[in-house]
Amino acid sequence: MKNFTALSDLNPFGEHLKGALALKKDHRKAATLGQGKTLGMLFFNPSLRTRLSTQKAGRLLGMEVVVMNFGSEGWQLEFGDGVVMDGGKAEHIKEAAAVLSQYCDVIAVRSFAELKNQAEDQADIVLNGFLKYAGVPVVNMESATGHPLQALADAMTIEEHKKRAQPKIVLTWAPHPRALPQAVPNSFVEMMQLMGGPTAIAHPKGYELNPELTRGIPIYHNQEEALEDADFVYVKNWSASDPYGVVLNTDPSWMVNLDKLGSAQMMHCLPVRRNVVVADDVLDSAQSLVLQQANNRTYSALYVLHQILQH
Amino acid sequence: MKNFTALSDLNPFGEHLKGALALKKDHRKAATLGQGKTLGMLFFNPSLRTRLSTQKAGRLLGMEVVVMNFGSEGWQLEFGDGVVMDGGKAEHIKEAAAVLSQYCDVIAVRSFAELKNQAEDQADIVLNGFLKYAGVPVVNMESATGHPLQALADAMTIEEHKKRAQPKIVLTWAPHPRALPQAVPNSFVEMMQLMGGPTAIAHPKGYELNPELTRGIPIYHNQEEALEDADFVYVKNWSASDPYGVVLNTDPSWMVNLDKLGSAQMMHCLPVRRNVVVADDVLDSAQSLVLQQANNRTYSALYVLHQILQH
Amino acid sequence: MKNFTALSDLNPFGEHLKGALALKKDHRKAATLGQGKTLGMLFFNPSLRTRLSTQKAGRLLGMEVVVMNFGSEGWQLEFGDGVVMDGGKAEHIKEAAAVLSQYCDVIAVRSFAELKNQAEDQADIVLNGFLKYAGVPVVNMESATGHPLQALADAMTIEEHKKRAQPKIVLTWAPHPRALPQAVPNSFVEMMQLMGGPTAIAHPKGYELNPELTRGIPIYHNQEEALEDADFVYVKNWSASDPYGVVLNTDPSWMVNLDKLGSAQMMHCLPVRRNVVVADDVLDSAQSLVLQQANNRTYSALYVLHQILQH
Repeated sequence: MKNFTALSDLNPFGEHLKGALALKKDHRKAATLGQGKTLGMLFFNPSLRTRLSTQKAGRLLGMEVVVMNFGSEGWQLEFGDGVVMDGGKAEHIKEAAAVLSQYCDVIAVRSFAELKNQAEDQADIVLNGFLKYAGVPVVNMESATGHPLQALADAMTIEEHKKRAQPKIVLTWAPHPRALPQAVPNSFVEMMQLMGGPTAIAHPKGYELNPELTRGIPIYHNQEEALEDADFVYVKNWSASDPYGVVLNTDPSWMVNLDKLGSAQMMHCLPVRRNVVVADDVLDSAQSLVLQQANNRTYSALYVLHQILQH
Repeated sequence: MKNFTALSDLNPFGEHLKGALALKKDHRKAATLGQGKTLGMLFFNPSLRTRLSTQKAGRLLGMEVVVMNFGSEGWQLEFGDGVVMDGGKAEHIKEAAAVLSQYCDVIAVRSFAELKNQAEDQADIVLNGFLKYAGVPVVNMESATGHPLQALADAMTIEEHKKRAQPKIVLTWAPHPRALPQAVPNSFVEMMQLMGGPTAIAHPKGYELNPELTRGIPIYHNQEEALEDADFVYVKNWSASDPYGVVLNTDPSWMVNLDKLGSAQMMHCLPVRRNVVVADDVLDSAQSLVLQQANNRTYSALYVLHQILQH
Repeated sequence: MKNFTALSDLNPFGEHLKGALALKKDHRKAATLGQGKTLGMLFFNPSLRTRLSTQKAGRLLGMEVVVMNFGSEGWQLEFGDGVVMDGGKAEHIKEAAAVLSQYCDVIAVRSFAELKNQAEDQADIVLNGFLKYAGVPVVNMESATGHPLQALADAMTIEEHKKRAQPKIVLTWAPHPRALPQAVPNSFVEMMQLMGGPTAIAHPKGYELNPELTRGIPIYHNQEEALEDADFVYVKNWSASDPYGVVLNTDPSWMVNLDKLGSAQMMHCLPVRRNVVVADDVLDSAQSLVLQQANNRTYSALYVLHQILQH
């Protein structure tokens, strides 16, 4: 594996998932694998879990880690070809990515969808700009279209907590006061496809995810039907697809509570709005796996960096 | 000691003070005590000395150190129980503290009083939120009500520079253009109580500190009387107690200069407004101990982390 | 060498240039020279290359590195003597520099010209404040008047890419939408003077650089004449000298393209505005040395820190 931009870079997924769980238990043997190598972490957006867990993963492998808040600490980047750069942007991705590749052995990038123009978001220009012009491996720390480090951590969590061989995994939309990107549900859906068991997706009309990703998964506009016999319920808000990038629905009856959950285990990538997305009764119960997921973020990043360093 | 939130966590204080001074001289023997442990430093407010000295202390003990400016780099935190989180705050302290406890072995927090509501400030909700929900030791890097790392460094400085066994220690208010928290004077007063010698506090009317802390210490509204026979004069501004959190008095005659100081040594936690709080003639003289205090910040943090790591 | 504030601190320059190129090839032998020493990097302005390359250089020498964005993370500094500090500035450089000198073994500072008052910018008050009050070596990471780490990297790049013993080095102004400081051209001109070969400077009227620095170098207001027989063309915008600090000229005919460049190699410190300062056809060609220059930033910082640590 050279770059890690989507879950499909881990192929075959089942073997990589086993590999990630094995490395989690025995990562001390890799404590010097990254010695003399530098991980550059570039943030175009806020981050808590990704910021700290990826740093920790790099250090556990013996890497030097440098963290940069690109927007406030560096220069605004231009991504267009042939542009006359007489506006607000001081540096072109061609130079930025090539220069960073001289200082860093791996570049990790976090850049959210802007939710203004669907085609632009789907072009994932920041991540793809680094992929095109960096001379070193690039890791996706959440882009406009996906968050595969989260999805790998989620798969590890499901594997560790499943009570039957092929658990039913359900993704359900839930309300939120702000318009959020589709990156997390996109990567979670990719992972659902790879896990092999029964699946379902629930969301209100107008919140359709990318049909290429959801192909074959039953989609419900009735949350209760989707949740039937669920083993894992992944709760997540995302903004509407039509019209794009807006809050179309705030119906509080989509919030997940213990009553709806039944005996299923609840997952969320965090940060979570309590009593809006998920009720306190779930988050404060043993059926919540949100902390286990966050803990696995260290080990999903560790596995991905480990794969890249061994390349 | 599990957590370090107030000077009273170092009990008996006299023994800990001796221990801190001893460790300062001989800390190289502890250079690997923190190996494989991560110190997470969370800043909700600006910081120079605390930021650099605590980082340095962690590294001197062999710890990994990660620094996060919580406000700008992460998510706004909610501290209320049972709140419907449909406002500006994206994450609850319950998740944030529990997640950070998975990435860090010690969490250090800096969060000032907001000076809007006295009861809220006294509840010290940020520090206490981390104490309640973190699964790892928590260190106070200045909270709404106290700054014990500063007070320990101050005690070390007094011990190193005292010219008689029981020096007289005086805390005096001085003017300042902005409303400042009472955290530093609170912790200094706690320390005065523990040092055992003669003490005095001077401030204008309306600037009363917490009477539970000052109990037994003579309080003067006449600065000259308080300073009589002083060995150490700690100069510090704080905002009024009644009405709460405002600048009630800007009388420049409260500024401390060499004439007032006599032969006493002057202390201040820094940053200090020259010629407003303390005059140039004092700060530029050998009677100023402000640099020695700042230097001891490294060693007070070193001692506190050392105690926690040995727990 | 105690401090590194200008290229003249490397005297004789020719020997230091050879030394820097030698250390670049063989720096692993110095991997523990900085062990137990702390490099404090203070940023008053944005930075990408300087931020990452200087951090990397410190780590390659085994130093601890702490990075601080002074403006947003710390306190506003006062530099005036005897000032009554009742305005917006919370801390005096006297205390800040002396305190930082207790936590750090080397202090590196980045602080741009404000371009409001020429005399103030030429006084270089931030860098000189640290020089005056720090008790440890100070490194200039770009000040109001110079950027010698860049100029040393540029000299290394010329040395590595020259095709004849005494290449002709030309500095040419180019247009830019914003008013930029003269620090980079100042240090480049100092370097041109030390390299010994033919030189030329081209800029429109009103863009005169400091005549003490340019003395003896032919100055042209006709770019084509200056570029004749050039081996290296350094392209850079700076703001006008009279009136000071403004954008006086935006004539696009000063942009450098492949046609103008002929067979010369093009240099720029980055970030560069494509198709405003330099055309795509140059930047995307093998005649561009901008990435080699950026790469040498690591090794110019490495050499300077190495010299200071050996002092």
